[in-house]
Amino acid sequence: MPLSRLPSPPYYAVIFSSIRTDGDDVAYGAKAAEMSRLAAQQDGYLGEDSTVRDENGMGITVSYWRDEAAIRAWKLQLDHTEARNMGRAKWYQSYTLRVARVERAYDFDRPDGNFQNRDQD
Amino acid sequence: MPLSRLPSPPYYAVIFSSIRTDGDDVAYGAKAAEMSRLAAQQDGYLGEDSTVRDENGMGITVSYWRDEAAIRAWKLQLDHTEARNMGRAKWYQSYTLRVARVERAYDFDRPDGNFQNRDQD
Repeated sequence: MPLSRLPSPPYYAVIFSSIRTDGDDVAYGAKAAEMSRLAAQQDGYLGEDSTVRDENGMGITVSYWRDEAAIRAWKLQLDHTEARNMGRAKWYQSYTLRVARVERAYDFDRPDGNFQNRDQD
Repeated sequence: MPLSRLPSPPYYAVIFSSIRTDGDDVAYGAKAAEMSRLAAQQDGYLGEDSTVRDENGMGITVSYWRDEAAIRAWKLQLDHTEARNMGRAKWYQSYTLRVARVERAYDFDRPDGNFQNRDQD
């Protein structure tokens, strides 16, 4: 998967850093994939970058959104709320979730050697 | 490593998503570790969460800073500038770097079952 390439700022990021509990990987993986698909269908969704987990179960997912209203609507979406409750009840040892307004963005790509300052678009 | 626990917002996040080129892992790893140590010594540094890379070399590092002035000072720091140049010349296939103002934050911890809304501190 290439990195998310987005329109010029401003837009919003949801930075979700988490540590999994042990086990239940199949059910967790299925639900996580379902939530990614569902998020991508929401109005105002711009993209997502997500990592694998290390041996301690730590990983980061950053999703990008047009505005705060889109993030709020996704937060209240019913299936997502149920998944979040499962996460707290069972799947996560700990997590931090941060909502942030992206103000500047830069891209680098080796194929064309381009460095882009997205602020100056 | 536990997840970074920070003071209440507002503060700033630098979201760095990258895909490594193949090879040169020892030199890259040493420089990346050195840059993490150096960042942590800068005025205004609050913390960092960083993942392992997947089979495609993709990983995410999010560092947290008191304000934009601290991020600007770190950007201009000489050793960091040299490392960034090496990154573009050799180590990264592509990357995106985003500077974002964290407006809301939530923590969850299983040991005490606590869910904290950091906005309401």
